[in-house]
Amino acid sequence: MKLNTKLLQQASKSVDKYALYVPKNGVFPRGFQVGSTASGVKKNGNLDLGIIRNTNTSRPAAAAAVFTTNKFKAAPVVVSKQILEDKNGTGINAIVINSGCANSVTGEVGIEDAKKLISHVDSKLGTSMSTLPMSTGVIGQRLHVNKISKGIDEIFDNNKFGSDFQSWLDMAKSICTTDTFPKLVTSRFSLPNGEKYTLTGIAKGAGMICPNMATLLGFIVTDLPIKSSALKSILTHATNRSFNCISVDGDMSTNDTICMIANGAVETKEIDETSQEYVQVQNQVTEFAQQLAQLVVRDGEGSTKFVTVKVQNSLTFEDAKIIAESISNSLLVKTALYGQDANWGRILCAIGYAKLDNLKSLNVDKINVSFIATDGSEPKELKLVVNGVPQLEIDEARASEILNLNDLEISVDLGTGTEEAQFWTCDISHEYVTINGDYRT
Amino acid sequence: MKLNTKLLQQASKSVDKYALYVPKNGVFPRGFQVGSTASGVKKNGNLDLGIIRNTNTSRPAAAAAVFTTNKFKAAPVVVSKQILEDKNGTGINAIVINSGCANSVTGEVGIEDAKKLISHVDSKLGTSMSTLPMSTGVIGQRLHVNKISKGIDEIFDNNKFGSDFQSWLDMAKSICTTDTFPKLVTSRFSLPNGEKYTLTGIAKGAGMICPNMATLLGFIVTDLPIKSSALKSILTHATNRSFNCISVDGDMSTNDTICMIANGAVETKEIDETSQEYVQVQNQVTEFAQQLAQLVVRDGEGSTKFVTVKVQNSLTFEDAKIIAESISNSLLVKTALYGQDANWGRILCAIGYAKLDNLKSLNVDKINVSFIATDGSEPKELKLVVNGVPQLEIDEARASEILNLNDLEISVDLGTGTEEAQFWTCDISHEYVTINGDYRT
Repeated sequence: MKLNTKLLQQASKSVDKYALYVPKNGVFPRGFQVGSTASGVKKNGNLDLGIIRNTNTSRPAAAAAVFTTNKFKAAPVVVSKQILEDKNGTGINAIVINSGCANSVTGEVGIEDAKKLISHVDSKLGTSMSTLPMSTGVIGQRLHVNKISKGIDEIFDNNKFGSDFQSWLDMAKSICTTDTFPKLVTSRFSLPNGEKYTLTGIAKGAGMICPNMATLLGFIVTDLPIKSSALKSILTHATNRSFNCISVDGDMSTNDTICMIANGAVETKEIDETSQEYVQVQNQVTEFAQQLAQLVVRDGEGSTKFVTVKVQNSLTFEDAKIIAESISNSLLVKTALYGQDANWGRILCAIGYAKLDNLKSLNVDKINVSFIATDGSEPKELKLVVNGVPQLEIDEARASEILNLNDLEISVDLGTGTEEAQFWTCDISHEYVTINGDYRT
Repeated sequence: MKLNTKLLQQASKSVDKYALYVPKNGVFPRGFQVGSTASGVKKNGNLDLGIIRNTNTSRPAAAAAVFTTNKFKAAPVVVSKQILEDKNGTGINAIVINSGCANSVTGEVGIEDAKKLISHVDSKLGTSMSTLPMSTGVIGQRLHVNKISKGIDEIFDNNKFGSDFQSWLDMAKSICTTDTFPKLVTSRFSLPNGEKYTLTGIAKGAGMICPNMATLLGFIVTDLPIKSSALKSILTHATNRSFNCISVDGDMSTNDTICMIANGAVETKEIDETSQEYVQVQNQVTEFAQQLAQLVVRDGEGSTKFVTVKVQNSLTFEDAKIIAESISNSLLVKTALYGQDANWGRILCAIGYAKLDNLKSLNVDKINVSFIATDGSEPKELKLVVNGVPQLEIDEARASEILNLNDLEISVDLGTGTEEAQFWTCDISHEYVTINGDYRT
């Protein structure tokens, strides 16, 4: 398992991520349209402006969002948060997203710029206060309001809206910055009463590459009717188990936003916290959000591995998550993965310094740590630590096989309870250092 | 400021750290002797066992220590902690330190092994429970008790103890693992009453290289008489501003220990928390510990820069420290430093996601961020953010000059109070990834 040229070449072997991770068709919810264009903010002429629009009128749409906790909040985050609060999560009919400029660290004028854009969209829709703004791109620069306004005109006046696969794929492309592929996931589910509903999600983010521009954005729309308070709790639950469980470099942008709209186009009773479908929908949205979030981890040019960190049998979910996060963010674990080194010491160390809520979640004599192969090969599990005792005579050949996989899992069994949490992470490579050492200029 | 071959060559230009950072003489406190030997645990025959011994008998020595907070505590940490508690910090007359094996994740037998060694030293000293054990090296392996016991015999029976410069330098060498130079600092101070006292410190640690072996150890001895409770508070204060303020990769070992002994060989009144000299001594020990801790940051083969992060005018010390730590540990800031990129966005971002105790410590409209040149060149300060506003037209030529320095400072002025904290960090380079991707095997 020495790091040598052959191994490094293997590790950096080119993968056609577009072919692997971009779908060729999809299913889309009723009552949503999307339109996108190249407004000129991106100098290369790529799509850089998109609008998601609710066209269902059978009942008011519900909307919810989870925003960055960074104290430097970008203008669109401040504005979107305020609108959602003012409207109590109902009656949001559009999201306008521009890429190329994050409208962050732009002060009061940034707020005004964001408001100009949403007023423009609202006037096109014939509504007011029904649009949320979002931006991603370089920070510290003002929005090109004129260019983006012309882009909005272009989308509405030339009716660039559609609800087919290509429209959604273009929408996904329009929010990309340094992403190497657009992120689009769609799924259809059945309710117990036989009605079907659809989830469509787009995301952007590729933290390994250019994290200043690496705002994490995720938008999920559904045609289910969901009460706004229930939507908020479903989205929070899902985000806590998906977008908040990915580690690229541990840094958090000023613009990070996950937003969901439920327009109620499906003819079924509105789902609230007491509905029998509530838990089912929550779980389906959570798994869906995990698929979307995992694509962000996949999209790291500097990374060679996709690693699931699963912490099981914890006293509390929160502590399982804290431990999974500590392992996932450990620079030493990430470099060991890159070097394909079965280094249990670094994993234990990262577990040991995790800042637990409840010290009883971790009993150093009960812990089990394994690598898990994900390619179906046997033995699937390679035990590194058993009941707190490191296995000094591990099967190095098998370790080498597992660590050579592009996808693998680190499994931690705490043996102190029944809760579990997962994180998704990637390795840190030479290319990561090269890319991140040479970004701004 | 593009990352190019020339720049990378410059950055990795070889520095003779031994010549720069290892002193050629020193001053040493009365009543301490040190002895070291090569016990054979290190296969290359280097020094790997050292004993610090108090020979002053005018009054009992006081001892205090700050230990790792990692939940996986190595056996010597568990044993030393217990002895210090049992003896209430008085009557500790020796520290025995072995390198090459950390005696960590070794369970009950590890505890027994550590106790065997200290019993051996105690019997040589004719005392009991007066010795603290400490270990550093690979984890998950049992101590070679026989080899180390023979080494202890060798040191005592051949009277290898001394109190001169060479003895102390050898002592510093004997605790090294992957360090590229031994870390020894000495200073003499005057008390208001004219009496002089001496601080001598040794440390080991080079986190950038092989962090599994990168236990951080620091030992400071003084001939001042200090009450054990006061010594504990002085050492805690000093460690919170020195060894706890260095960032190499954010990981924390199972063995980290900073220990101090005050033997009272200087004929002056014992210092306690109410003494007029208390604050003076606390400040002197703190500055001394900072010098020692900085040597650990200097000793990173994978690093090309030594960076002081100073956070000033904070509402609370704790929040100043949390912000300094967040910047110092940010992978994106560290890679930007390596790439010599004046990237204010990453610094602001790291400030923004710091988990503050009191949100009022940070006012996004009052913050100032600058790079500070440390080579005496002018203008000394390059302002990146002024009262929350990024300076988009910075002097790139000057930025390039400052970022090309081996030593530089990131200055953050929060403008919300009067407290300050400093951290010392280094950059993350390609070499770091190479070294850490290829360690265990």
